[in-house]
Amino acid sequence: MAQDTVGIVDKKYFHFAHPPDEMEFECGQRLGPLTLAYETYGELNRNRDNAVLILHALTGDSHAAGYYSGEDKPGWWENMIGPGKGIDTNKYFVICSNVIGGCMGSTGPSSTDPRTGKPYALSFPLITIGDMVQAQKHLIDSLGIERLLTVIGGSMGGMQALEWSVRFPEMIHSAIPVATATKHSAMAIAFNEVSRQAIMNDPNWNNGDYYHRSQPQHGQAVARMIGHVTYLSDIALHKKFDGPNNGATGREGGFFTEFPVSNYLRYQGQKFVHRFDANSLLYLTRATDSFNLAQRYGDGSLVQAFSRASCKYLVLSFSSDWLYPTSQSRAMVKAMKKNNIMVTFCEIDIDYGHDSFLVHNPKQAALVSGFLDQVHREDG
Amino acid sequence: MAQDTVGIVDKKYFHFAHPPDEMEFECGQRLGPLTLAYETYGELNRNRDNAVLILHALTGDSHAAGYYSGEDKPGWWENMIGPGKGIDTNKYFVICSNVIGGCMGSTGPSSTDPRTGKPYALSFPLITIGDMVQAQKHLIDSLGIERLLTVIGGSMGGMQALEWSVRFPEMIHSAIPVATATKHSAMAIAFNEVSRQAIMNDPNWNNGDYYHRSQPQHGQAVARMIGHVTYLSDIALHKKFDGPNNGATGREGGFFTEFPVSNYLRYQGQKFVHRFDANSLLYLTRATDSFNLAQRYGDGSLVQAFSRASCKYLVLSFSSDWLYPTSQSRAMVKAMKKNNIMVTFCEIDIDYGHDSFLVHNPKQAALVSGFLDQVHREDG
Repeated sequence: MAQDTVGIVDKKYFHFAHPPDEMEFECGQRLGPLTLAYETYGELNRNRDNAVLILHALTGDSHAAGYYSGEDKPGWWENMIGPGKGIDTNKYFVICSNVIGGCMGSTGPSSTDPRTGKPYALSFPLITIGDMVQAQKHLIDSLGIERLLTVIGGSMGGMQALEWSVRFPEMIHSAIPVATATKHSAMAIAFNEVSRQAIMNDPNWNNGDYYHRSQPQHGQAVARMIGHVTYLSDIALHKKFDGPNNGATGREGGFFTEFPVSNYLRYQGQKFVHRFDANSLLYLTRATDSFNLAQRYGDGSLVQAFSRASCKYLVLSFSSDWLYPTSQSRAMVKAMKKNNIMVTFCEIDIDYGHDSFLVHNPKQAALVSGFLDQVHREDG
Repeated sequence: MAQDTVGIVDKKYFHFAHPPDEMEFECGQRLGPLTLAYETYGELNRNRDNAVLILHALTGDSHAAGYYSGEDKPGWWENMIGPGKGIDTNKYFVICSNVIGGCMGSTGPSSTDPRTGKPYALSFPLITIGDMVQAQKHLIDSLGIERLLTVIGGSMGGMQALEWSVRFPEMIHSAIPVATATKHSAMAIAFNEVSRQAIMNDPNWNNGDYYHRSQPQHGQAVARMIGHVTYLSDIALHKKFDGPNNGATGREGGFFTEFPVSNYLRYQGQKFVHRFDANSLLYLTRATDSFNLAQRYGDGSLVQAFSRASCKYLVLSFSSDWLYPTSQSRAMVKAMKKNNIMVTFCEIDIDYGHDSFLVHNPKQAALVSGFLDQVHREDG
C-alpha cells in the first residue's frame, strides 16, 4: 500500500434520534430515526479546529479515501485526501458522510420504513440540498465539533458547501465549492429530466415500488449513460475513443455496437445498476434541480443570499466543464464580492470536463492545500 | 393561406429499378426495388439549370414546404422555401426526398422485404451518407436534371451536401452545408450511442423485430428526448423554461414531473414515437456517426478529400450550436481554401443551438438567397 494513503478504513454509522426521533425536512415531512453512513480520516486535534467535511457528488458515498479491508479500489477522492495530499490527513481531521436520500448506508428511499416494514420508496420526503446539510449538521454536532475548518465538494457536493455557508455560517471557517452553481442551468435540468424519464419510463420502475422484484435496470443504465456523457468533455471523449473512421468496425461485436464508446457506455450503465438505487437517483437529481440559493436565502437575490455568509471561499471551476460552466462560478464570486467576502477564484485549465474534480488534478490539490493552510493559520 | 407559401403539395414516389432492380450499398449488400418519397416546388426552367436539392436532417422527411391537403401544419423548412423566400420557388425548382433508410415513404428497415413478405428490420443494409446520396442521384437522373444549381441541408442534410460535392462534383454548381461537420465529434457519437442504447435496451425492441407487436416506445421516447436537449442551446432552454425556483412546483402534476421542461420533453418523446420508426433512428444515427469525409475520400486528409470538389460552397454555422460547433465548420473551410475552392463562410449569431437552421432565421435566408442568385447568375 502506498505511503500517501490513509490505509484501511471502516464505514461508520451515525444514528440520530433528534427529539423525539425525527428530522423535519424542508417539505414539512418528518421522518425518523435516521442513519448517516460516514467515514473519518486523520485525527481531531485538541482545539477541535482542524475538521474538514467532504461533500460528495450525485452518486458518491462516504468512502472518500483509503481502502476497505480486502478491497483494492480506494475511495473516490483518494487522489485528494491522504498524508501530504491536497487535503492532508496529517494535519486535518476529515469527515465524509453519505447524503440523506442516498443508498450507500444513509437513510433513503430504499431503506425500510419502520412504520410499514417496507422500503420507503416514493413515500420518502422530497429532499433538498438543505436537508442533506441539516442531517450533516447533526452528525458534526455528535462528533463534538463546533466549527469546521472547511466544507468542500464538487458538483452536488459544491451545492452542499454553498448551502452550509449560508445556512450555518457560524459553524464554518471556510467553504470550497468546486465545479458547481447556485442554481442549475435549464440544460442541466433538462438532462436530469431525461435521465429521470428513462427510469420512470421503464415498466419495471412500477411507480417506485420495485424492491424485491425486477429492477428498472434498463432505464437506470440509460440514465447513467446520459450522466456520463455530460460529465465528460468532447476532448476527453475524443482522447479516449477517437480513431480513424470514428472507430467504426462494421458489425463485429454485435449490431450497432461498433463504436468504441458503445461498450464503454454500456459497461458504465451496467456497473451503475448494481451499485445504485434508481429511486435515490430520482430524489438526488431532483434535489440538485430544485437547488436555488438566491431564491431560498435571498428572495431571488444572490447578493442578498451571500450576505448571510461569514466564511472565506475558494471557488474552483474547470475550463472544459460545459455542464457547470465557469460563468456560473463567476456569477457567485461576483455576488460574494459585493458582500466584501474574502474569496479566491480560479478556473483550472484541464480537459476532463465536469469530472475534472474527480481525476488526478495537481492544480486543484495545490490550490486547496494552500487555501487550507492559510485559513488554518489565520483562524485556527 | 399566406402568399409566400408554395401552397398545397403532394408527396410523390420514385421507384427505381436500377439494373436489374437493385442498388449496391457501400457495405456491399444489394437491394431492390427501392422507393424514394419526394416532393417538388416551383418549376424546372427550360435550361434545366435552376434545380435545388434539399437534404433533410435525421428525423426530417420529403415534406419541406407547403401544406398537404386538409392539414394546417406546413413542411419543416416552410420558413426557407417559398415565393420570395431564402430559396425562392419563383426562381428555382426545389426537390426534397426522404432519405433511403428513412420511414417517411422511402425504403427503409420498416419496409416490406419482397423476398420474405416481412419488414426488413435488421436485415436492411447498414446505410451510409454515401448511400443516401447515391439514391438521390438516381432520382435526379430520373427527373432529367444533369446538374443541380445547389444541394443544401443542415446537420445530417449538411453531411449529404458535403458528400454530393465530392462524390458527384460534375453534377452540382454549388453546395450549402449548414450546421454540420465532415465527421462527428466523439461527443456527438456518444449522445447518439446513448440514444441507440435507450432503444436497444427496451425489451420491446426485440432485436429489431417489433413490427406488428409492441413497439420499443419507452426507449424511443427517451432517445428523442436526448436528441432534443442536444439540439437546443442552454439559452434557448432557459428562455423557454426558466422561472423562479427553477419552475419547481412541488408534487403537483405527478411525482418528479414538477419542472416545466418535464412535460415538454415527455410530449416531444411521445409525439416522436407515433411518427418515426425506431430502427430507422438506429440506422440513420449510425450513418451520421460513421460519416468521415477525410477517411472516405482523402485517405485521412480532408484537404485531399476536397480536392475532388469543383463547386462553390456557402458554409454556415451557428454561434450557439454546441453539438456541431463552429470550429468544425472552420476546419472544413480551411481544407476547401487549401484547394483554392471558392467558399463563403458565416457563423450566424443566434441563440437556438443546433436547431437554429430550422427556426425563423432571416440571416440564414438572406445569405442563402444572395449566394443562390450569384451562383445562378455566374453558372446558370
